[in-house]
Amino acid sequence: MTSERMNGLLELQGMDAGAIRDLLAPAARLMENRKAFGRPLAGRTVVNLFFEDSTRTRVSFTVAAQALGAGVVQFGSGGSSVSKGETLLDTARTVEAMGVDALVVRHSSAGAAELIAGHVGVPVVNAGDGAHEHPTQGLLDILTLAQSHDRLDGFDLSGLTVAIVGDILHSRVARSAIAGMTALGAAVVCIGPAALCPDGIAALGCSAGRDLDAVIGSVDAVMALRVQFERGAELGDGADGGLGDAGAYAMRYGITSERADRMKAGAVVMHPGPMNRGLEIESAVADGPRCVALKQVAAGVPVRMAVLLHCIGGDVGAGVAVT
Amino acid sequence: MTSERMNGLLELQGMDAGAIRDLLAPAARLMENRKAFGRPLAGRTVVNLFFEDSTRTRVSFTVAAQALGAGVVQFGSGGSSVSKGETLLDTARTVEAMGVDALVVRHSSAGAAELIAGHVGVPVVNAGDGAHEHPTQGLLDILTLAQSHDRLDGFDLSGLTVAIVGDILHSRVARSAIAGMTALGAAVVCIGPAALCPDGIAALGCSAGRDLDAVIGSVDAVMALRVQFERGAELGDGADGGLGDAGAYAMRYGITSERADRMKAGAVVMHPGPMNRGLEIESAVADGPRCVALKQVAAGVPVRMAVLLHCIGGDVGAGVAVT
Amino acid sequence: MTSERMNGLLELQGMDAGAIRDLLAPAARLMENRKAFGRPLAGRTVVNLFFEDSTRTRVSFTVAAQALGAGVVQFGSGGSSVSKGETLLDTARTVEAMGVDALVVRHSSAGAAELIAGHVGVPVVNAGDGAHEHPTQGLLDILTLAQSHDRLDGFDLSGLTVAIVGDILHSRVARSAIAGMTALGAAVVCIGPAALCPDGIAALGCSAGRDLDAVIGSVDAVMALRVQFERGAELGDGADGGLGDAGAYAMRYGITSERADRMKAGAVVMHPGPMNRGLEIESAVADGPRCVALKQVAAGVPVRMAVLLHCIGGDVGAGVAVT
Repeated sequence: MTSERMNGLLELQGMDAGAIRDLLAPAARLMENRKAFGRPLAGRTVVNLFFEDSTRTRVSFTVAAQALGAGVVQFGSGGSSVSKGETLLDTARTVEAMGVDALVVRHSSAGAAELIAGHVGVPVVNAGDGAHEHPTQGLLDILTLAQSHDRLDGFDLSGLTVAIVGDILHSRVARSAIAGMTALGAAVVCIGPAALCPDGIAALGCSAGRDLDAVIGSVDAVMALRVQFERGAELGDGADGGLGDAGAYAMRYGITSERADRMKAGAVVMHPGPMNRGLEIESAVADGPRCVALKQVAAGVPVRMAVLLHCIGGDVGAGVAVT
Repeated sequence: MTSERMNGLLELQGMDAGAIRDLLAPAARLMENRKAFGRPLAGRTVVNLFFEDSTRTRVSFTVAAQALGAGVVQFGSGGSSVSKGETLLDTARTVEAMGVDALVVRHSSAGAAELIAGHVGVPVVNAGDGAHEHPTQGLLDILTLAQSHDRLDGFDLSGLTVAIVGDILHSRVARSAIAGMTALGAAVVCIGPAALCPDGIAALGCSAGRDLDAVIGSVDAVMALRVQFERGAELGDGADGGLGDAGAYAMRYGITSERADRMKAGAVVMHPGPMNRGLEIESAVADGPRCVALKQVAAGVPVRMAVLLHCIGGDVGAGVAVT
Repeated sequence: MTSERMNGLLELQGMDAGAIRDLLAPAARLMENRKAFGRPLAGRTVVNLFFEDSTRTRVSFTVAAQALGAGVVQFGSGGSSVSKGETLLDTARTVEAMGVDALVVRHSSAGAAELIAGHVGVPVVNAGDGAHEHPTQGLLDILTLAQSHDRLDGFDLSGLTVAIVGDILHSRVARSAIAGMTALGAAVVCIGPAALCPDGIAALGCSAGRDLDAVIGSVDAVMALRVQFERGAELGDGADGGLGDAGAYAMRYGITSERADRMKAGAVVMHPGPMNRGLEIESAVADGPRCVALKQVAAGVPVRMAVLLHCIGGDVGAGVAVT
């Protein structure tokens, strides 16, 4: 597993199916019963080292760590040494020196988590680094997909096709999903304008398409990416290969009720949240029966529990149910 | 109890005396011995979902939840998905999906907690919603009043008269206090300028007066409301029925030493905090023997413990003392 | 121990060697084995009452309190009652009234922690008050120095000389280090321009010098103070007795490789962090073998554990190893 340092989790890219299943199998057990392994991290400390705003990811990791009995310390870049000019590595090494057991790192720059992992002696979990990866998001996407299509036993995704729609190029969510899903045998097709979904993206192991309507009726899942206004995504006029204006975007790439109706029986709509209702997903679809966005959120907690257990070394294999 | 959804607590308005007593009785036991019920919420997670700044309420709920053994996750609107344009309901449903046991909600809009409660399947505790209600504040006010007047046994407040002074119209603290105190038999008289304390306020079950000095000598408690500059309360010149300038306000509605001296033996001065010393309350009164503001703060923790136990389902009736 | 109120810790100035050793001895045991005393603060609540930004100190106290089993509540001045105009004492008394067990106070004004300690009935730990003191930083500096020079058994620092370099006058870190180190027998020489390191500083029990190169070869430790841009430290042109520009500062007061090479065998370089690499310390020195900055950070947790135990009353004397 080349993506590991000290049992951390930096990216799904490069992980083989076995390594991914080793994380997903305990996650599935924890999804069924959060207390399946007791509180094996009691007395341990997890630090959320977040240099970039987050809510759902931070809260999810916090709930996960607490559920395992760990103490959680929140570190946000606001009001911190970071504003005093300290380097990223000095900050990370300082927190490590306090005797903590894992660092959960979010940063706006791709590679930040790996950089830190290369310089500390505790496990680092990448909670999103720029446009690179968000591996626990990828794992929860897979867990939800497997749950929806009855593949929890073994996580063999062969025969399933997933469409990922939108700005693939800048999406860490897409990168982790592509790496993880294809490793487990799924076919992934990315849909978007050429500028944001170039043909070269096939190097990631997926195919690239332009026409959502051409594939919507045949895929087993469609994942609508969030248009990330807060990261500077500009809809523009579409002439330059950008996303176009909001109406044009919704028309070409939005998961509308009309499109959802054309999906196969059992096919699901995924969204990493937070959602721009009316833009990348129509509100009726978001609240409709195909949408598994809240199941993705729910899957995130057991996934992060499994990852923390893997990192810190709690024994998940021999765990017995504790009530 | 019409104010409940999923055993949550949204408002005191509409609750009958029995339902209020069911919350106050365990609170009184916890006030005497915080460990009276052990740690019945160990392994549970409470989320403080605060869309509006707060310190005392947030800290009080945190101390209360931790004292019962629960894990607490802080969610503030700063640096969160909220700033990414997610809707209030999507945020609440997302946090719910993570498998938490209760949401403590504060929001600047009246009705926000009820809106959320109508769309999630976990208990919601209203920790203040705009100018509507702040029910745990009302309960702690009642608990303090009962403590001061030896009514802890049964919480029968009949025969007691409470004056609430200031901007009644915009005060969620006043609304909760009026609803709860009158349900338990107290008489409440609201004192303020007509614009902020209109005669129509009698619909809440209290009476409206203009002259603090006319009642100060006969009431059993006077509650000075905070002038909420941060909510845009303008003292103005008083000509428009507003609060007038600071000096005029203090002269007409301030709890001065002179007024405190005219109160009955045993009558108390209440304030929800934080105080504007020299405005709605004279500093010597705030630090004097009649003022029970810190007792109100102290009562807040057992009240919130009792509410969380009620919501999440800890067995408070059969609790035995644990040391 | 004149610096105590309610077993709190406000300053090292005035503490005798015995009182300091009573804190350092359990800290040394905890440094060896963080679980040496079990979880004696289970069920207790520590509040970080931080009116000034901080990361390392806040996180360190949090890790320390959690390691002892205590619950920790974060109180930051942002988004709090403080912004509603509440007085410092009202805020502190309010938090105290919630039934917490200790207040860890950081404030930008010298004397703030002592002011609070004089008005509440729970222990107050000063986590840095303006330019006055930062006593747990002083203790961790001593613990690290003693560790580096094999003085952990008894903490007798006689025969050791420590140079503190930079803006002594405005440094709470320097004041605590001087008080504590000299009480235990070390000699301290402060090095800096006269305006920031006046001869009168000898009143603190140290000597004042101007020339770092004159002492670098003979001291057992050199402590580089941080140039605190965020506190308004201006390097200026040096003509007015200020720090001079960055290049001039580094040349006169920076701990460069060349200077580090001239230090005695076994002599160490200390820095309270966060570091301005290339200014008060050269990067190669910061990452080199003499630098014990991360050991200082590591020592901070057991020091704060010992202080909290001392304050809240956990029995550290009779503690037995718990695994």
